[in-house]
Amino acid sequence: MRDPFNAFCPHSTARLEGAKSGPLVGLTFAAKDLFDIAGHVTGGGNPDWLALHPPATKTAPVVQKLVDAGAAMVGKTNTDELSRGIFGENAHYGTPINPKAPGRVPGGSSSGSAAAVAGELVDFALGTDTGGSVRVPASFCGIYGIRPTHGRLAFEAVIPQAPSFDTIGWLARTPHLLARVATILLGISMDDAPRPRRVIVAEDAFAIAEPATRAALAPAIDGLTKLIGRSEARELSSTPLAEWLRHQSALQGREAWTTFGEWIDTHNPRFGFEVADNFLRGTRADDAALNTASEFRAEARRQLALLLDPETVICLPTTPFPAPLAGQPRSVMWQRRVPVITLTCIAGMTGTPQLSVPAGDVDGLPVGLSLLARRGADDMLLALALTAYSELGIGDRSSGANIS
Amino acid sequence: MRDPFNAFCPHSTARLEGAKSGPLVGLTFAAKDLFDIAGHVTGGGNPDWLALHPPATKTAPVVQKLVDAGAAMVGKTNTDELSRGIFGENAHYGTPINPKAPGRVPGGSSSGSAAAVAGELVDFALGTDTGGSVRVPASFCGIYGIRPTHGRLAFEAVIPQAPSFDTIGWLARTPHLLARVATILLGISMDDAPRPRRVIVAEDAFAIAEPATRAALAPAIDGLTKLIGRSEARELSSTPLAEWLRHQSALQGREAWTTFGEWIDTHNPRFGFEVADNFLRGTRADDAALNTASEFRAEARRQLALLLDPETVICLPTTPFPAPLAGQPRSVMWQRRVPVITLTCIAGMTGTPQLSVPAGDVDGLPVGLSLLARRGADDMLLALALTAYSELGIGDRSSGANIS
Repeated sequence: MRDPFNAFCPHSTARLEGAKSGPLVGLTFAAKDLFDIAGHVTGGGNPDWLALHPPATKTAPVVQKLVDAGAAMVGKTNTDELSRGIFGENAHYGTPINPKAPGRVPGGSSSGSAAAVAGELVDFALGTDTGGSVRVPASFCGIYGIRPTHGRLAFEAVIPQAPSFDTIGWLARTPHLLARVATILLGISMDDAPRPRRVIVAEDAFAIAEPATRAALAPAIDGLTKLIGRSEARELSSTPLAEWLRHQSALQGREAWTTFGEWIDTHNPRFGFEVADNFLRGTRADDAALNTASEFRAEARRQLALLLDPETVICLPTTPFPAPLAGQPRSVMWQRRVPVITLTCIAGMTGTPQLSVPAGDVDGLPVGLSLLARRGADDMLLALALTAYSELGIGDRSSGANIS
Repeated sequence: MRDPFNAFCPHSTARLEGAKSGPLVGLTFAAKDLFDIAGHVTGGGNPDWLALHPPATKTAPVVQKLVDAGAAMVGKTNTDELSRGIFGENAHYGTPINPKAPGRVPGGSSSGSAAAVAGELVDFALGTDTGGSVRVPASFCGIYGIRPTHGRLAFEAVIPQAPSFDTIGWLARTPHLLARVATILLGISMDDAPRPRRVIVAEDAFAIAEPATRAALAPAIDGLTKLIGRSEARELSSTPLAEWLRHQSALQGREAWTTFGEWIDTHNPRFGFEVADNFLRGTRADDAALNTASEFRAEARRQLALLLDPETVICLPTTPFPAPLAGQPRSVMWQRRVPVITLTCIAGMTGTPQLSVPAGDVDGLPVGLSLLARRGADDMLLALALTAYSELGIGDRSSGANIS
């Protein structure tokens, strides 16, 4: 397959034909190289992981479901190493090219999946989202992406990172296809989805976005407000989001080290410097900090649940700015990283579903507007995205292909 | 060239013929891949360093001196990445094999140089020693190694690490050849070298060695005592050596980051995990800790200078134990690493010359005894090693080849 965006793993020959009949017949998809395909080694974006693991013995259930529904899996996509990254830069395999923002990072860690979708190499793609890894590349690449309710889809036969955050998600160019995949994977129908009656514009989240991004998303927010009828601008939390991030980082870092630490210790694998730095930062929080973070998370969930009645959606910027330039120094990217994951940690810490809509652009660079609802309300988010698209044209900046 | 010990860099074709006449005609040597050879890229043990640097424009003066003296440079040798390691393990190019201790690490970072000498692939080899990188592989591989007085040889056209510690050194199977190289590089003669009249057996250093290593080195110490005439067992420092190490680590870590930090930040290179960990640990000491460490170093130099009159040598174990098994987890090697560099930091912090003699073995595994003298007394150490060899047979466990 032609791959002008370095979206696909050079080493993987994993392909699966779709079933002859089913609701997804005729569609193609790619899977991030964290998903197991029986008979193939799952590489996880790191050549030492690839070299030191045997072929998978079973195919990830989500991949199998899609194939059984008729979609063809046409390749594995590049990812940040062991899903530890938010910008899509990979020191071993190179950074996938952002088809919608040349010279800019695609976002990660589901970088190849987003590039393959945005570049129209596939109809949709599977990713994973632990700290923003579907939502961020969706925003940067100008496509749709959903992180469903945490725990709703089993994270099975997929390389884990931090289980209390790990979530399977997917990316597409239209809300229609995003919803069709949801129908297969979550077993939901958007026909009988509840309709929100209140939109909360998250002031503390928008405060983190750059002014140009806020301005770019304003028309879509106005449209949503008209569609839903009632809008409230307010802060989501009395605690600064920077503190949310601190707790998320402690929890995610510890879990990631629990997942990978022994393997790293045993094999001394090669990582891009920043990935090693990330892992090492993750080991710094002590048990007391971990306990505090756990308690904070439980309370944050309670507080957000109070806000999120069944008829409420929150809207927030998916990312605080469009895709940064690729190839910048680590120190620059680290500064860019902090506000990005401050926004994504809201759904991460609360396990709520979040859907990113390609709702605006800043000087031609895409930025996403996110919809967030209470746990389990994935259908409401998808139905809202469909309505916003068809009635208001929100998100209708994608290629137009596969509106089906 | 046949390379059963993975001593040589797979990527380097750098070779230099020796001059037709000169005191080293007929001898071959290798140079750690930190030394520049004009027209060739110096790789530094890291493939991203190799890929991102142009060929050297001049040959390192020490290499040139040896070639001008008639020795042939037959290859570049493997090293720990950017000389950041003490055991010789390299995640990219593999760990050189210890010819004298199969299944064990060769020691590093001058790992390939030591393996090439111990495995009789060359007559001698150049290495560098910042925190022990010549002395440790000399001990583990059962050969001679010298770290001359810091600053005596310019560290020129060599990849630096931590300039206030960086020292060019060399390895050989006999004290004779070690001395012949010294004659060329340092311009000294052992004929008129002073003869020590007192040996200090460093109790605080021997306390760090394992009992079996102490026992293995005891006969050589007895021999030296007889040879020199006067022996004193005493502590080198009223400050625990663990504290010396803490200060050395702060200073070396900061200097190494000053040397490499911008390059790392710009290029996000791939490192074995432990190398990245090493660099990151090196950035932790704050300015106050650095100041304290500098002051400690100045005072440690003063104190040791008082002890080291022109007729005194110190003897200490080069390493606290023989070469550890290769391929052990990082956490195990980290524990092994600490006592090793606690011993080597004595010369490191004081800039004194140290010569390691292959003076014993533990269950067939070599361990070195080190001689240390005041700054500038390189000739006294070399002359003493020659006398100990010829009169007492100390160090005469090497192959016997090239006693010339």
